[in-house]
Amino acid sequence: MRDIQFKDITIVYEKEELGLDAPIMLEGLPGVGNVGKLAAEHLISEVKAEKFASIFSKYFPPQVMVEEDGVARLVSNDLYFHKRTGSEKHDLIILVGDYQGLTPEGQFLLSSAMVDFAKRYKVSKVITLGGFGVGHMVEEPRVLGAASDKAVSTMLRDLGVTLTRGEPGSGIVGASGLLLAFAQICHIPAACLMGETSGYFVDPASARALLRKLQGILEIPIDLSKLDEKAAQIDKITSKLREIEQVEEKASNEDLRYIG
Amino acid sequence: MRDIQFKDITIVYEKEELGLDAPIMLEGLPGVGNVGKLAAEHLISEVKAEKFASIFSKYFPPQVMVEEDGVARLVSNDLYFHKRTGSEKHDLIILVGDYQGLTPEGQFLLSSAMVDFAKRYKVSKVITLGGFGVGHMVEEPRVLGAASDKAVSTMLRDLGVTLTRGEPGSGIVGASGLLLAFAQICHIPAACLMGETSGYFVDPASARALLRKLQGILEIPIDLSKLDEKAAQIDKITSKLREIEQVEEKASNEDLRYIG
Amino acid sequence: MRDIQFKDITIVYEKEELGLDAPIMLEGLPGVGNVGKLAAEHLISEVKAEKFASIFSKYFPPQVMVEEDGVARLVSNDLYFHKRTGSEKHDLIILVGDYQGLTPEGQFLLSSAMVDFAKRYKVSKVITLGGFGVGHMVEEPRVLGAASDKAVSTMLRDLGVTLTRGEPGSGIVGASGLLLAFAQICHIPAACLMGETSGYFVDPASARALLRKLQGILEIPIDLSKLDEKAAQIDKITSKLREIEQVEEKASNEDLRYIG
Amino acid sequence: MRDIQFKDITIVYEKEELGLDAPIMLEGLPGVGNVGKLAAEHLISEVKAEKFASIFSKYFPPQVMVEEDGVARLVSNDLYFHKRTGSEKHDLIILVGDYQGLTPEGQFLLSSAMVDFAKRYKVSKVITLGGFGVGHMVEEPRVLGAASDKAVSTMLRDLGVTLTRGEPGSGIVGASGLLLAFAQICHIPAACLMGETSGYFVDPASARALLRKLQGILEIPIDLSKLDEKAAQIDKITSKLREIEQVEEKASNEDLRYIG
Repeated sequence: MRDIQFKDITIVYEKEELGLDAPIMLEGLPGVGNVGKLAAEHLISEVKAEKFASIFSKYFPPQVMVEEDGVARLVSNDLYFHKRTGSEKHDLIILVGDYQGLTPEGQFLLSSAMVDFAKRYKVSKVITLGGFGVGHMVEEPRVLGAASDKAVSTMLRDLGVTLTRGEPGSGIVGASGLLLAFAQICHIPAACLMGETSGYFVDPASARALLRKLQGILEIPIDLSKLDEKAAQIDKITSKLREIEQVEEKASNEDLRYIG
Repeated sequence: MRDIQFKDITIVYEKEELGLDAPIMLEGLPGVGNVGKLAAEHLISEVKAEKFASIFSKYFPPQVMVEEDGVARLVSNDLYFHKRTGSEKHDLIILVGDYQGLTPEGQFLLSSAMVDFAKRYKVSKVITLGGFGVGHMVEEPRVLGAASDKAVSTMLRDLGVTLTRGEPGSGIVGASGLLLAFAQICHIPAACLMGETSGYFVDPASARALLRKLQGILEIPIDLSKLDEKAAQIDKITSKLREIEQVEEKASNEDLRYIG
Repeated sequence: MRDIQFKDITIVYEKEELGLDAPIMLEGLPGVGNVGKLAAEHLISEVKAEKFASIFSKYFPPQVMVEEDGVARLVSNDLYFHKRTGSEKHDLIILVGDYQGLTPEGQFLLSSAMVDFAKRYKVSKVITLGGFGVGHMVEEPRVLGAASDKAVSTMLRDLGVTLTRGEPGSGIVGASGLLLAFAQICHIPAACLMGETSGYFVDPASARALLRKLQGILEIPIDLSKLDEKAAQIDKITSKLREIEQVEEKASNEDLRYIG
Repeated sequence: MRDIQFKDITIVYEKEELGLDAPIMLEGLPGVGNVGKLAAEHLISEVKAEKFASIFSKYFPPQVMVEEDGVARLVSNDLYFHKRTGSEKHDLIILVGDYQGLTPEGQFLLSSAMVDFAKRYKVSKVITLGGFGVGHMVEEPRVLGAASDKAVSTMLRDLGVTLTRGEPGSGIVGASGLLLAFAQICHIPAACLMGETSGYFVDPASARALLRKLQGILEIPIDLSKLDEKAAQIDKITSKLREIEQVEEKASNEDLRYIG
C-alpha cells in the first residue's frame, strides 16, 4: 500500500532523479485542433520518451477511463523525459495529458505546478505547443509564435515563425499561454508555437507544420511519416466533404437558374 | 457540548476503533438508477452493519432533512462496518449517503477522504458499486466491471462480470470511478461493479444482479428476497406503462391505415 | 489604522467580552418572505440589542451600500447581544444580515463560523428563524418547526408548533437548516421555526406568527404592534390586488358568456 | 532563474522600497464606461508614474496578450508610484489593470491584497475611481461619490461631488466598492468617485469630469487635453449615430403620415 494523499494537485512519481542536463520542456495538452497534443505525442513516440510522473487533480473531470482488460486509469497529465542520444543536443521533458484544467483557477494552478517542474529540473527553455483556430480551411498552415523576450522572438523569426503584435487577437488562453508567461516571469527563456488550423477537427497537418519548426529549436531531426499518414486520412475525409458540398452547391445554382 | 470544527470535509466518529481485520470496503452512493445505493443499503440491512462515522461537507447541498418528530438530520455520507460472524470470511466497511459531491472538485476531495479511510483501516480490497445507463429497457441486466489491475480483472471475469476496453465509453464518472482509481494508485486491489440499467428509474433488478456477483467476491450469501419484492413492484409499474404505450401505438397505427 | 486581514470569512468585533450567561442564539437571515429576517430585526429593535460584531466574507456579493451622507457600508452579517433586564430570563445573541452565502460552499462555511460563535459564548440554545413557502395566500399562518432532538421537539409541540416528518418536503435549506444541524451535531439544543408564507412578498404577518411562538421559548413578552402595522399595509396592498383580479375575472367570465 | 511561486494571488515586485510619504492610493480598474481606468491611466501618463509591482492571479482570465515582436504578457493588475515634485503635495500609488476578478470571491480577495498594500505603504487616503451607468446619453456628467466617513463626505461635497443616500441604488459593486469599504474598516480615510456615463461605450468625457474633481483632492493640476481629444472623437461618433437615428425617425414619422 502506498500512502499517497490526494490533494488539489497530486504528483505521483515513477522516477524522480532523471539525471538530465538543462532539458528543454515541451507542453502539448489538448486544445484547438489538438495540434499541440498531436505534435507532443508524436515526439514522445519518435524519441521513445519515458513517463516519469503523473499529475492528478480536482481541476480535471472526475473521470476514469476503462482500458485493456477493463483496467481503470484516472484522467491525468503526464510527464515524459528523454536523455539525448547520438548527435542530439538537448535532453527533453514533455508534458501531455487527457485534459487541461476545467476552470480558469484550475488552469492557473496547474500551470503553476508545471513551472515548478521546470525550475526543479533546471529547464533551459520552455516551449508550449498549441493550435491557432482561424475558422476556415487552411492549405499551408503558418506557424505563429509568442516569446518570453526579444532574443527568443528573433530566434523564432529566423526559423520562419510568424510573430505579430496582437495575433492571436484574443491572446493565448490556457496552459500554452500560462506556462509561457510563468516561465517568462521566472526568467526562463520560453516560446509558444501555434499551428494554424481550421479548428473543425483534429489537425495532423498543422501538427506537422509545427514539428517542422520545432526541429529547428530542438536541433533534432523528427521522422514525420506517421503524421503524413494521419494528415492524408484527414485530407481524404475533408476532400469527400468538399466534393459533396460542391455537388450540392452546383445543384442549388442550377435550381436557381430555373427560377431566375 | 462537543467541540466539532466544521471544515470543508468533516468526519464525525461514533466509534473509531473497530477492531477489523483487513476489511473489504464497499461504496454505494446515489447514481444512475441508484443501483449502487440500493445494493449497498440492502447489504447493510441484511448483515446488520453498524454506523461508525458520518461525513459532512460543503460539497453536499446545504440541506437538512426533517425526520420522525421533526428531528433534523444534515445530509451526509455515512460509514458502516460489519465484523464477520459464523462462516463469513471478510470484515466489511460500507459507504452510503444522501449525495455525491456537487462539483468535480468536491467529488475528487471527498473520494480522497474515502481512500484515507481505506488506508487507515488497512482495507484489503475496495469495491465500488454503480449503475451503467443504457437508455433502453433491460431484460437481463449484465454486470460490467473495471479493475485496478489484471489479477482483479481475471477474478471478475471468472465471476461472469463483463470487462471491455472502452465500456462504458465515457469512462466511469463520480465516486465509483475516483475511489477505484485512488485505491489503484495507492496499490490497494480494487474493482468497480456496474449493473446495467435503463437509467429511467431506481432499478432494484439491476441492484440484485449486482449483488449476485458481489456475493462471489465477498464470499457471503446475501438474502435477496427484499430486492425481489422491490423489483416486482417496479416491474408492475413499467408493465403498465408499456401496455399504455402499446395501446397508444396500435391506435396511432390504425389512424395511419385510414390515411395510407 | 487598524490592521485587519480580510480572509474568506472575516469577523470584526466592536466588543468581544459580553459577560453573557448561557445566552439563547437566534438567527434571522434573508430567505423566503424574509420572515426570519423581519422577526429577528423586530426583536433587535424591541429589546434594543447592541451590535458587537460584523462578518464580512467573499461568500457575500462584492457590494457596498451607500447610506446617509454618502457613507459606504460593506454588506455583512451582524451579531447583536442583549443582556436580560427586569423579569427577563435569558440573555440573547441575534444574527441578522444583508445576505446568506451565495454558494452551497459559502453557506456551509458561514454557518460553521456561526456555530463557533455559539460555542465561544456558551450558548444554551440555538433558534433559527425562516419562512416556509407554500405558493398560495395564507390566512392564518402556521408555524412549522424542526428540532435537534426529541426533548426540543416536545417543547415546540407544546407551544403549538407543527412538527411533521418530511415537512418541508425538500428539507430546510440554507443558514436556518445548517446552523440547526451544526448545533445538533455539537450537542447544543436547537430548533428551527418557519412561518408559513405565500413566498410572494415580504410577510410581516408570518413574522408575527413566528414571534408569538418565539415568545414562549424566550420567556419574553414582545410588543408586536409595529409588525401589526406592517402586516396591515401588506394586507391593504394584497386586498387591492385581489379586487383587481376579481374584477378582471368577472369581466373575463362575462366575455365568455357572450361567446358561449 | 527567479524562484517565484504562483499562488492564488501572486505579487511580483520590480521595486519594493519606494520611500513614499503617506501617499494617496488611487484605483482605476476596468468597469462601466471604463471611466475609472481611463482616468487612472491618464493620471499615470501625465505624472509619469513608475510601475513597481504586478499582481497575477487565478481570479483573472488565464490569458496572455501578444505584444510588440510577439513578446507575451500575462494579464495582470499593476501598481505605479509617483513621488511628488515641485509644488505637488502628495505622493501617489495608482492601481490599474486588464481585469477585475472574475468572481465575487476573486474580487473580495484581490481587494484584500490591495488594502494590504495600502497598509504596507502607510497610505493616507484611498480614492477609488469608477463609472456610474445611467443608461442614457449624458450632456454634463455629474460626479457621484461615496465616503468612508462624514469628514470625507463633507470634503467631497465641498468639491461639488454629489452624495446621496441610496445612489447608486444597487450600491457600488466590484473593486471600487470593496477597496473603499476595506479601507473604511481599517480606519483609512477613503472615497469612491463615480463619473456619470451612459455605459454604452468608453467614456473619456466622464473620465475628464472625474479628474476635475480629483484635482481638488490630490491638489495637483492635471493637463486634460489628451482626454479632450479622446472625448471629441467619441463625440463625433455619437453625433453621427444620433444624426442617423434622427433621419430614420423622421423617415418613419413621414411613413406614418402616409398611413394616418
